[in-house]
Amino acid sequence: MWADLLPVGRLANGGYQRFAWTSADMACREWFRAEAGTRGMDVETDRNGNLWAWLGEPGPDSFVTGSHLDSVPGGGAYDGPLGLVSAFAAVDALQTRGCTPARPVAVVAFVDEEGARFGVACLGSRLSAGVADPERTLALTDSDGTRLDEAMRAQGHDPAHAGADPQALERIGVFVELHVEQGRALDAPIGLATAIWPHGRWRYDFTGEGNHAGTTALADRRDPMLSYAMTVLAARKQARLADALATFGKVVVDPGGTNAIAAGVTAWLDSRAPDEATLASLVAAIEQQAAERAERDGVRLRVTAESVTPPVSFPADQLDWAAEVLGNPPRLPTGAGHDAGVLAAAGVPTVMLFVRNPTGVSHSPAEHAELDDCLAGVAALTDLMVRHAC
Amino acid sequence: MWADLLPVGRLANGGYQRFAWTSADMACREWFRAEAGTRGMDVETDRNGNLWAWLGEPGPDSFVTGSHLDSVPGGGAYDGPLGLVSAFAAVDALQTRGCTPARPVAVVAFVDEEGARFGVACLGSRLSAGVADPERTLALTDSDGTRLDEAMRAQGHDPAHAGADPQALERIGVFVELHVEQGRALDAPIGLATAIWPHGRWRYDFTGEGNHAGTTALADRRDPMLSYAMTVLAARKQARLADALATFGKVVVDPGGTNAIAAGVTAWLDSRAPDEATLASLVAAIEQQAAERAERDGVRLRVTAESVTPPVSFPADQLDWAAEVLGNPPRLPTGAGHDAGVLAAAGVPTVMLFVRNPTGVSHSPAEHAELDDCLAGVAALTDLMVRHAC
Repeated sequence: MWADLLPVGRLANGGYQRFAWTSADMACREWFRAEAGTRGMDVETDRNGNLWAWLGEPGPDSFVTGSHLDSVPGGGAYDGPLGLVSAFAAVDALQTRGCTPARPVAVVAFVDEEGARFGVACLGSRLSAGVADPERTLALTDSDGTRLDEAMRAQGHDPAHAGADPQALERIGVFVELHVEQGRALDAPIGLATAIWPHGRWRYDFTGEGNHAGTTALADRRDPMLSYAMTVLAARKQARLADALATFGKVVVDPGGTNAIAAGVTAWLDSRAPDEATLASLVAAIEQQAAERAERDGVRLRVTAESVTPPVSFPADQLDWAAEVLGNPPRLPTGAGHDAGVLAAAGVPTVMLFVRNPTGVSHSPAEHAELDDCLAGVAALTDLMVRHAC
Repeated sequence: MWADLLPVGRLANGGYQRFAWTSADMACREWFRAEAGTRGMDVETDRNGNLWAWLGEPGPDSFVTGSHLDSVPGGGAYDGPLGLVSAFAAVDALQTRGCTPARPVAVVAFVDEEGARFGVACLGSRLSAGVADPERTLALTDSDGTRLDEAMRAQGHDPAHAGADPQALERIGVFVELHVEQGRALDAPIGLATAIWPHGRWRYDFTGEGNHAGTTALADRRDPMLSYAMTVLAARKQARLADALATFGKVVVDPGGTNAIAAGVTAWLDSRAPDEATLASLVAAIEQQAAERAERDGVRLRVTAESVTPPVSFPADQLDWAAEVLGNPPRLPTGAGHDAGVLAAAGVPTVMLFVRNPTGVSHSPAEHAELDDCLAGVAALTDLMVRHAC
């Protein structure tokens, strides 16, 4: 099962490029349909493009588990797919456990969790939960200028009914997302998430004056690369002072010629903190340092909040239930957003289960989890499935 | 004539994208052939792809003038094409002046002056002058991995004979390149270049560790974006101290995801100085600061000199001759490389004529020269043509 998925969207360096609604994503979704078919599970595509594979008739109080198939640029094999492979493996394990489910069981693949293509994360779950406005969301464009609704249509999905989907979510008795942990915070095979830090993306547009790198005196320059460079260092320093995170991982230069002073630099700040007040003051401090430097450089700065997600606490009832079933594994918060966080914030009963990451590396080809820990994840997922559905 | 060329390779923001051996470049070359044809000039393509339009039979002691048609990414309308439009206008002016040339006159368009596609500037003149090794040069690749020889072949040019072309250059009695000045150093309609500063391009490869921006503790990071940012600021500071120029205008991030710490950052340093010793110590100081910061960040740094061009002094005999013909216009050095510099360094009798740039902006859509100054440039070029050829 795992082996069939590994070659899809793989880059020469071993990383994965599986952006939503691309052919690599479609190949992953075909894999999902095939795995469901092998198990006699009917697959439905909901109005937002999320895939649901049902063991038994869809209905209320279902046990739903799943994650996502798409990736960041050059991402790892585990982030997302581990949750789906484990979900199907848990369905297989039901038989071994001698369980005929009394309640429906579903495996779900949420579409476009990473936001790598259209810039906003968790689009599938956000649309279904009614927290993303369908009109604005469908008008998002990728780096080629393709709109989300065009991208859906190109892959045969009608975007006309995209939006809040309470009927789909009301069937969920409990949703469990299994995911590889993405830092080094978990020192046991599995753990339970308590909360997701508030986090967001801010676009920094620095506009200066394009000019010749070989003839323009330093004093005559308005070079936005200088303002950007200062902002990168300021973000790191302010994050350290705030005991939080701030990262610039994407930058686009106009025109980007070796012998041309940049006319414009656009860069994206990713920032996360344990609480909203810390995040707000961190982001404000970075913007202020950026603005001061831009002014010195004769550069115009515009900062746009592209997405800001408030903190999520996973519901205590389900957390305690899962802890009791699983023998009290470690509990931990995380800085990473997940579809489970979107659903929990929308009032869906949700459990987030982590599998240990020995190196803490994620969003990289080097992302890894030990087989024994993965098997512990499948066993835990099966335990929860059996307890709820059998 | 000018109006026919303006739409070719034009971007939505008014800038130009005319990379060598692309369809935009081919359209510019078609324009050249058409302008030559209108004037009864025969066009030859030399072994390296440079275009020569001859008024009369090609022969020794010719008056040759021209420049280049290709552009930097998002460049201006004047850099290169002004020299060709002015050259054809000067040929037209011969009749008005009642001159039937006693010596051959040619207009030449050197191919790939900017080096925007294959990373090395003045490829056409360097190959012809025998200062670029044809085997290594033809193996250069663009950002899509296309080799120069493949790019030539795709446009119908056989690269088999690329290389030193003494027969072509020995015909030159004097070569005059008219070019828009690219800083604010010229405060008269026209001026004469005395020298070109030594200059070069250095590629900085910073390699860190790709990771998740939301879950990796600051202390666990090896983020090459930090090392790059520090290097940008160090380059500016060292250039100021050395009274020279240093610019980072191009940067590529791997993988370049908003929520991923960069695994690698590749950036290009453009640096120029009045003399070679200053340039060498400036470049060394920047590299040292970059290496120190990279070490602190746990990042590996490799610096590669992609091209380094020694200083050029334009030959005194031709400079004095042109100054006498033109009534002693201002003389000035420049930080920008030109085909005329390559030819002068190879011993070709060369004059470099600048037209005033009122704002100093170049390599930008905002590049501009006043019409009166352009006409003064044509008149000067005609004066030199008449004096040599009639």
